[in-house]
Amino acid sequence: MTRYKLTVEYDGTPFVGWQWQRLGTSVQQVLQEAAQKFCGPAAEIYGAGRTDAGVHALGQCAHLDIDKETTPDVVRDAINFHCKPWPVSVLAAEIVPDDFHARFSATGRRYRYRIINRMAPLTVDLHRAWRVKRPLDDRAMHQAAQLLVGHHDFSGFRSSMCQAKSPLRTLERLDVMRQGEEIVIEADARSFLHNQVRIMVGTLKRLGEGRFSEQRISAALASGKREEAGPTAPPDGLYLTEVIYP
Amino acid sequence: MTRYKLTVEYDGTPFVGWQWQRLGTSVQQVLQEAAQKFCGPAAEIYGAGRTDAGVHALGQCAHLDIDKETTPDVVRDAINFHCKPWPVSVLAAEIVPDDFHARFSATGRRYRYRIINRMAPLTVDLHRAWRVKRPLDDRAMHQAAQLLVGHHDFSGFRSSMCQAKSPLRTLERLDVMRQGEEIVIEADARSFLHNQVRIMVGTLKRLGEGRFSEQRISAALASGKREEAGPTAPPDGLYLTEVIYP
Repeated sequence: MTRYKLTVEYDGTPFVGWQWQRLGTSVQQVLQEAAQKFCGPAAEIYGAGRTDAGVHALGQCAHLDIDKETTPDVVRDAINFHCKPWPVSVLAAEIVPDDFHARFSATGRRYRYRIINRMAPLTVDLHRAWRVKRPLDDRAMHQAAQLLVGHHDFSGFRSSMCQAKSPLRTLERLDVMRQGEEIVIEADARSFLHNQVRIMVGTLKRLGEGRFSEQRISAALASGKREEAGPTAPPDGLYLTEVIYP
Repeated sequence: MTRYKLTVEYDGTPFVGWQWQRLGTSVQQVLQEAAQKFCGPAAEIYGAGRTDAGVHALGQCAHLDIDKETTPDVVRDAINFHCKPWPVSVLAAEIVPDDFHARFSATGRRYRYRIINRMAPLTVDLHRAWRVKRPLDDRAMHQAAQLLVGHHDFSGFRSSMCQAKSPLRTLERLDVMRQGEEIVIEADARSFLHNQVRIMVGTLKRLGEGRFSEQRISAALASGKREEAGPTAPPDGLYLTEVIYP
């Protein structure tokens, strides 16, 4: 038995999310069925974390145990062959120690959120970004984002479906950067609550439009009330870009 | 009558190209039908140049005459409203002099071609770039590209369907740049022959793989024989990024 770490990219648009669901196709299912065609029916895929329906990944990580003699490049190419025609792609496969676990060994997750700030509807970036019509003040957004950085109770910034036992998280970084009409928001943490990145983005968007003050964001953090924070940003603009291991 | 210049973005994937065709939907048709719903049945759209099926635009230009009283932002929003659900978007509308012509006033066109140089299939960039598996030597490609810059007979680099009277063109710039696994090729000229950018890219790709020499490229240029140049690169990676006016 050899354990392989897979680095996986996907377009989340056609999926119900990473995780198996009763209805619809999940990314995990596509990968697991592809792996089973290559390694036999016992193959199981463990991911570093779930992504919601419509959320993309440029660097999701997963692990898989393989019994037969093979090599990393063959594992990558074989799984990719069997993933077709779904937009799921193994970028790299590598051998890892048997105690490596995609989820439990991870020490960090990095997400990117893309906003296109313009009136015109999206075309090449449709389902790849959030189009926001009102002009956004990206500097004010970046400044306000710093209120969220640090160790906090993020109860106001989690979905009512969130299953995490504790609402405490340490947000390491929340940067807002503009490049022309595109605003990119990057978030780093050991782990995130359910919908945390999308609620932080939805809240900063309100502030960038001038509809929320910094006080409102501090209040949402202090009160832990979901309704004090902004609406959840759509999944289209969210990318899991990296999972970090020691 | 007021003449408007439109700057247009589109995802070329679902279209037969810019130009009306007997079968399938063209970008020009979507724009013209949208304009007619807004300004009446006489509205006609004139583009700066044709793009082929599957080719995208980030900055195509077109013009249109409008009789009724309106403003540029209303023109942009009204046409965009009526373009739905097609991935065609007017980024900006502006009033131009009556003798402005999207095609004949243009003094330059700029194209970008995106290659993703990796083994793994594309997901979020599917239909947005060309995936090339063999490692490409981007520096050698950039150096060889300079052989094509200048005033030449590009007979070896045009489609057999090309209707241009002269095969002479002046290529102002052909730059090859790598950013990680992505290779971007940018081409500037007053105008291009049919398929010229895609054939130049297909030829440079062969050179980047080590299958063509610089001599081969010089020979293709000197002989004017289409079979001396490389195959036509797929439309997926090609973007008309800008049309230049004095």
